[in-house]
Amino acid sequence: MKKVYNVAIIGLGQIGSYLYRELLIKKKEIQKKTGKIINIVAISAKNKNKKRKFKINKKIFYTNPLKIISDNKVDIIFECIGLSDGISKKIVEKAINNRIHVITPNKALIAKHGESLSNLAIKNKVNLEFEASVGGGIPILRTIKEGLATNKIHKIYGILNGTCNYILTEMEKTGDTFKSILKKAQILGYAEPGNPKLDLNGYDTLAKVKILSALAFNKKISKSNCLMEGIENIESKDFDMANQLNLRIKLLGITEIVNNRLFERVHPCLVKKNTYIANVNGVMNAVILEGMPVGESVLQGEGAGPGPTSSALMSDFLSILRGNIKYPFSLPNEVREEVKIYDDANYENSLYLRFEVKDKPGVLSQITKNLAQNSISIQRVIQVPDARRKTASIVIITHQTKQKNSNKSLKTLGKNINMLKKPVLIRLF
Amino acid sequence: MKKVYNVAIIGLGQIGSYLYRELLIKKKEIQKKTGKIINIVAISAKNKNKKRKFKINKKIFYTNPLKIISDNKVDIIFECIGLSDGISKKIVEKAINNRIHVITPNKALIAKHGESLSNLAIKNKVNLEFEASVGGGIPILRTIKEGLATNKIHKIYGILNGTCNYILTEMEKTGDTFKSILKKAQILGYAEPGNPKLDLNGYDTLAKVKILSALAFNKKISKSNCLMEGIENIESKDFDMANQLNLRIKLLGITEIVNNRLFERVHPCLVKKNTYIANVNGVMNAVILEGMPVGESVLQGEGAGPGPTSSALMSDFLSILRGNIKYPFSLPNEVREEVKIYDDANYENSLYLRFEVKDKPGVLSQITKNLAQNSISIQRVIQVPDARRKTASIVIITHQTKQKNSNKSLKTLGKNINMLKKPVLIRLF
Repeated sequence: MKKVYNVAIIGLGQIGSYLYRELLIKKKEIQKKTGKIINIVAISAKNKNKKRKFKINKKIFYTNPLKIISDNKVDIIFECIGLSDGISKKIVEKAINNRIHVITPNKALIAKHGESLSNLAIKNKVNLEFEASVGGGIPILRTIKEGLATNKIHKIYGILNGTCNYILTEMEKTGDTFKSILKKAQILGYAEPGNPKLDLNGYDTLAKVKILSALAFNKKISKSNCLMEGIENIESKDFDMANQLNLRIKLLGITEIVNNRLFERVHPCLVKKNTYIANVNGVMNAVILEGMPVGESVLQGEGAGPGPTSSALMSDFLSILRGNIKYPFSLPNEVREEVKIYDDANYENSLYLRFEVKDKPGVLSQITKNLAQNSISIQRVIQVPDARRKTASIVIITHQTKQKNSNKSLKTLGKNINMLKKPVLIRLF
Repeated sequence: MKKVYNVAIIGLGQIGSYLYRELLIKKKEIQKKTGKIINIVAISAKNKNKKRKFKINKKIFYTNPLKIISDNKVDIIFECIGLSDGISKKIVEKAINNRIHVITPNKALIAKHGESLSNLAIKNKVNLEFEASVGGGIPILRTIKEGLATNKIHKIYGILNGTCNYILTEMEKTGDTFKSILKKAQILGYAEPGNPKLDLNGYDTLAKVKILSALAFNKKISKSNCLMEGIENIESKDFDMANQLNLRIKLLGITEIVNNRLFERVHPCLVKKNTYIANVNGVMNAVILEGMPVGESVLQGEGAGPGPTSSALMSDFLSILRGNIKYPFSLPNEVREEVKIYDDANYENSLYLRFEVKDKPGVLSQITKNLAQNSISIQRVIQVPDARRKTASIVIITHQTKQKNSNKSLKTLGKNINMLKKPVLIRLF
């Protein structure tokens, strides 16, 4: 068996550079644990001379990562750039075609191209590992693939995006606006400084949900445009209202098999304050998994940041060094079936609806009439007037309501001339 | 690579018989996941004709498990008897010496003989797997060995015994006595019907703690007689008192490295009601792990019962079928060092002390004088008289107190003629 492994790191942002330092520091420990000697033979980033937290070895620096493969004998590559396509995809494909193992935290790449890349990896008999793509430091993928290997999993849900959870936690705690908390999150490094949209609109959570579904249900990655709603429209007053109702707002990713069909969704939820999930705060991630015969399992840990991500990357690394060649999605791809998609028109929830309206007679009646016409039955109404601005917030809690009915209702209500903003919808979990 | 694996199950109690059925049901799925065909070639228990929940194949039944190995070509044995010595140890040793992989949920055996058995397994190049020995369905050992492979873990604690947690939860909820809840637990199958002592006195938790320490800190299993206290002396009135103080009682197993020394302990703790650990109820287990760089990780799941245990046994099984030969304690035994043991005389806690005394003048003064002499400083005193019986319960919450001082104080106070029962001590966590 091979004794020395040559390693390259592509991308030296927060994660890549932290990993680089970890590999240097833990070289001896890794040798003790696996019997393997590791050499970092190449690193790559856009800018060689950028100021970095950790000193890098410029002698092994490449601006063009593709050149690394032709220049060196590399055994394992870490792809830490993070694009769903472009150079991330190119370098991963080139590496695999050259029989190089690939480790990546890139959920966008795996959610989009996981099928073709895993085919390629199996064909070339190398590992494609992506533990760090879901749940940060929580080894959730390994737990599904190995720790709970023969369980029949029927549902997984959880808090999968640390940025959103931090923002929601802080908005509730401080009463500050979304905008100001987002700025704080960016300063603290919890949110992308440039464009945090993919975290906030639910896309990041959705990519993780797709990877979880494929692994937990032994299916191909779904290509459906499933229900995805972010947290951008949530305001301080939603937290006040939630508080009055003894509820808390959380962005959840949920995937389950309903009538043999896959039902994936990402949206904000109102959860009871005394539940477990309501008390996972800040940048923490949590995954709850329901399986047979194991019952309910909960895994919680830091979901973001270079430390937890490195922890996951290193677990993939040791798995390869220990010689555990595995299918990327735990099974040969040909036995992983295509999924049938559940029609979310029938998704039923009790809903929290907030309408910002002009405070004049007849508006509440227009809203309730519309709801009634769409078979939406009301449980509770709270109207809070803003006398100065002559506006009002109307919050309605509905009984169980089908997705297709609320869609229809909100579409017409959104166009109502008395409506000052897009109505806010949060589902009760 | 080998294609067909012959399997034997020793012990057909709750766990063994559930596992037997799982293996039969999941034969095809296992073949799909691993490419391996499995045959159950032998099963063994004391009584062939005992009534069992699941039908067994009597043609492959052995009363003497040792005979299985001479009669059959066996590749993997499940030891599900559960003794720390005796036939459990014999069959495991014989199996390993015959180059048969061993899988066991037997924490008593591993905590006591894990070193010699793992040496034997490494020598014979077979797996000795014991995921099911700690945390039931929670894949905590695999998580430490693989998912968090290069983390520097400095502390692990948690609720590791479902029986005790069930009893404490029910005592708080119902106000019933320890004895009546224990009986209920036995009827429900949560506590051993015969002799539940090893669960209740903390021994079961301690065995699990020892296994966790060895894996998390990469040390040899400690042989120390460490601090071990159970829940047998806790009474309803302790829950009333805890409730008044907004606290809850939990039996925790804790292990950490303090000044390069191993400090393991098991004892009841008073935890704040709003903390995570206080809300892990019933038969649930939870493990909290602090590591670098991963931060705090939490794993929660069903800790007892044949379902969760089978889930863990099957994860070991698939690991072997997938060809992952590994060191039982993740490292070659020669690099796992002996541990130095922390002196718990210096263990400091705020203490909850309850004294049951004769209600007559001077008793409180005798107690407080003794505490003062032993440098124990009092934070709070609650005295509840029982006029009818002419007795009183005196509860004292102390400031931070060293173990050696409380030991000394309770030793003398226990002999005080006004003391009606052994004083109860619970540490504030």
